[in-house]
Amino acid sequence: MPAKTNPGRFFEDYAIGQVINHAVPRTVSGGERALYHALYPARHALASSDEFARACGLRASPLDELIGFHIVFGKTVPDISLNAVANLGYAEGRFRLPVWPGDTLRAQSEVIGLKQNSSGTSGVVYVRTTGLNQRDDVVLDYVRWVMVRKARTDAPAPETVIPDLAPVVAPENLMIPEGLDFTNYDFDLAGEPHRFADYAIGEVIDHIDSLTLTEAEHMMATRLWQNTSRVHYDASLRTDGKRLIYGGHIISMARALSFNGLANAQMIAGLNAGAHANPCFAGDTIRAWSQVLDKADTPAPGIGALRLRLVAMKHGGTVGDLKDADGKYHPDVLLDLDYWALVPL
Amino acid sequence: MPAKTNPGRFFEDYAIGQVINHAVPRTVSGGERALYHALYPARHALASSDEFARACGLRASPLDELIGFHIVFGKTVPDISLNAVANLGYAEGRFRLPVWPGDTLRAQSEVIGLKQNSSGTSGVVYVRTTGLNQRDDVVLDYVRWVMVRKARTDAPAPETVIPDLAPVVAPENLMIPEGLDFTNYDFDLAGEPHRFADYAIGEVIDHIDSLTLTEAEHMMATRLWQNTSRVHYDASLRTDGKRLIYGGHIISMARALSFNGLANAQMIAGLNAGAHANPCFAGDTIRAWSQVLDKADTPAPGIGALRLRLVAMKHGGTVGDLKDADGKYHPDVLLDLDYWALVPL
Amino acid sequence: MPAKTNPGRFFEDYAIGQVINHAVPRTVSGGERALYHALYPARHALASSDEFARACGLRASPLDELIGFHIVFGKTVPDISLNAVANLGYAEGRFRLPVWPGDTLRAQSEVIGLKQNSSGTSGVVYVRTTGLNQRDDVVLDYVRWVMVRKARTDAPAPETVIPDLAPVVAPENLMIPEGLDFTNYDFDLAGEPHRFADYAIGEVIDHIDSLTLTEAEHMMATRLWQNTSRVHYDASLRTDGKRLIYGGHIISMARALSFNGLANAQMIAGLNAGAHANPCFAGDTIRAWSQVLDKADTPAPGIGALRLRLVAMKHGGTVGDLKDADGKYHPDVLLDLDYWALVPL
Repeated sequence: MPAKTNPGRFFEDYAIGQVINHAVPRTVSGGERALYHALYPARHALASSDEFARACGLRASPLDELIGFHIVFGKTVPDISLNAVANLGYAEGRFRLPVWPGDTLRAQSEVIGLKQNSSGTSGVVYVRTTGLNQRDDVVLDYVRWVMVRKARTDAPAPETVIPDLAPVVAPENLMIPEGLDFTNYDFDLAGEPHRFADYAIGEVIDHIDSLTLTEAEHMMATRLWQNTSRVHYDASLRTDGKRLIYGGHIISMARALSFNGLANAQMIAGLNAGAHANPCFAGDTIRAWSQVLDKADTPAPGIGALRLRLVAMKHGGTVGDLKDADGKYHPDVLLDLDYWALVPL
Repeated sequence: MPAKTNPGRFFEDYAIGQVINHAVPRTVSGGERALYHALYPARHALASSDEFARACGLRASPLDELIGFHIVFGKTVPDISLNAVANLGYAEGRFRLPVWPGDTLRAQSEVIGLKQNSSGTSGVVYVRTTGLNQRDDVVLDYVRWVMVRKARTDAPAPETVIPDLAPVVAPENLMIPEGLDFTNYDFDLAGEPHRFADYAIGEVIDHIDSLTLTEAEHMMATRLWQNTSRVHYDASLRTDGKRLIYGGHIISMARALSFNGLANAQMIAGLNAGAHANPCFAGDTIRAWSQVLDKADTPAPGIGALRLRLVAMKHGGTVGDLKDADGKYHPDVLLDLDYWALVPL
Repeated sequence: MPAKTNPGRFFEDYAIGQVINHAVPRTVSGGERALYHALYPARHALASSDEFARACGLRASPLDELIGFHIVFGKTVPDISLNAVANLGYAEGRFRLPVWPGDTLRAQSEVIGLKQNSSGTSGVVYVRTTGLNQRDDVVLDYVRWVMVRKARTDAPAPETVIPDLAPVVAPENLMIPEGLDFTNYDFDLAGEPHRFADYAIGEVIDHIDSLTLTEAEHMMATRLWQNTSRVHYDASLRTDGKRLIYGGHIISMARALSFNGLANAQMIAGLNAGAHANPCFAGDTIRAWSQVLDKADTPAPGIGALRLRLVAMKHGGTVGDLKDADGKYHPDVLLDLDYWALVPL
């Protein structure tokens, strides 16, 4: 009898245009919100308070955008990255609709690019992943590319297709939740006085706060998103006995730490690019800094968009210092994320 | 003034026919579900998605059957096993009704067997424990027997009564949730293509995935079920400074790991037997394997029942290898659980 | 461009009568309740079961009073204690209204006392903090005083104002939730038979149970309450690599441990005083004991009030032994809390 377990897909198992419906839809509730607040020092008011959200024109507090992102990402792991050697990048991410308690999320990916490596033993797979709710509305989508091993090295190389990806989501393509209105935004309740006009392109913000990671926390987080990649859970897989922390855990940690200086960057609207620059382990103490990369108007009342670079680093890193002279990330840089956030004017 | 704390019951405190109403009813919500998904790599679709559950004829996603089991079990601890030397076995477990968010659970046990040990210092207590919801409907029941110390060794031995327990819950006695229908079961969303007919009696399934346990996680889990046994929490009680992990934590961990190969074993319907073969501690890396022990039809549309042995073991264990030549569990075997699961035809 | 991060307030930044609206309102749900039960061995029936609460005249199970307290406290940290040297005391705490799942809490503090220290480098700030729900009803209030550093040591000393604080909340000022009625209280479901008349003033209760603290748990708890004080999270801030555990974590742990002997001390109604006697770290094993300080009638049906001293201590401590001959807390005493609880007659 053949094995019933999922071996994951290998490079030769992907074809351009292939659509994969990922397994295990997931209904979210206030439970996921509470856990998110226990796992990360999240304080952005819109994802914390129904009252604050209503004063901003929404019907209730949406779940943090990254909850939706992690759940959708987690569903793709068994089909996309179980045999991945490296998670190479993100592009064209858009948060299209809020995720509310009670919603059920599922995920779908389309293969949009393939390129076998010169070694012939692996290749790069580009997928556009879509997260849908119970009404089949798209709540978010993004492109991700990963390097995946071949199981049969003699499998023929596919025709190389490299998708034409926007380096940045154009601000006019950002989707703003229906009704969102920052005209009567309460800066006291939000925690900081800084508005759109107070941020200058190029400005670097040191988020000051820091915390030391533990095994239990990152495993709980990663399981919560039903991410099945074994390297995050099994200390016996590496010779050093360490568990690799899911990159998304660092995204959420850095985003939550960025409250201190970016308390009014309330919602993530777009994900332009992202690199998990170095691996991260329990015991590491992390900090974050941001740089304002761009600013844009939006058609929504009282709302501007800041394009932000969010960097997570281990202690030893220097705020504002990302790469060495050769363009290589410093070894203490963990994450370099480029996103659009919605802020009050 | 006499001590106000609960010393627990001793062997001589039990009598055949005695009914104990256990304390502290508990209302569950989406919070318990979210925590379950954070603590265990649970992915069975029926307990994850309201939409999937509705497509299977239920009104919403029920809580994982083991949430109900752990809560009911936890309530019995102060009355049944606070002075237990060993948890000896389970039998005749039936999951009778789904537990929904919003339900309030309480527990009751009847003493159905007693046998003093030849040493005269302890004895075996058999109880049938019943979990009830806020409508006094039975949601689950099972027999458990434990070895309990005597406080007064001169207390007379009770008449020996050993209950006549079914070695296996007869498939015709399994209770299938009203409305459950796997006729239009979505195997893609569930995560695996294997249906009832694809499983053969005797077949062994290696669930492949593994994870390393931590102190924080097992303590959070055990507290969540209001299990008060101090050995799980206090590192100073053993000379080696270890906290004994609640056996139910291993049951849930193994069941969740079994998704990989048994993704369609959606619901636990019966608990035939169970042994916590060896103690387990933080730092242990665990894996699971299953063996198909039997197969049975059910009257419900599109639904069959698989009788499964679920084994959890530490690294070092061998899939399919349970006991030595003398019939003793290998030291790396942690759990040997015999249960019925409902699967699509 | 000036730093956008919050440096916290210094002693010279406070003035008598100043009112601070603290940031980041928070909506709570069953998720916070589930996490509370996972983080603490909480078993008091009223905060566990909707059915039990309804039988006591409430519309549902309220969240544990300490959830409200921690959330309100956490909101004050960025404004009150970010630059605090020490948390000196509590007084005049009253739990005025239950907090229900779905409520949104915010916090406000008024400066009611100031006293510069003789060194001129710091001073004591007294605030009365009020927690409000979405209807602007006060759910709880309390006085706290902290020692805060000066940033500019040449800033002039303010006029000394020391508020006149009641040593104990007078029992007639306790607020009992509307409808609460213990006339038909179910002692079996609550877990212990002891009623108001069974407790004697002066009586000491050893709560017996104990547990060993972990880093992951206290950090999750502290984040859950959006308490931002970095000393709780960053192992690199102290030369010994330890993270200071939030004092409120010990309050909740001790209160939960006190179930064993005080299962019927269902609700906290008043907070008379409190001292975090010594710092606490992961790895410490803690126990709790209580002393009955006073008893009082209440106008509510079937309900009395016990004034209790709740003491948490590390292993090594002795039940009933709080201070040395000089009136100094023993080094193994962690918490000395003086509160009023509502118990059935």
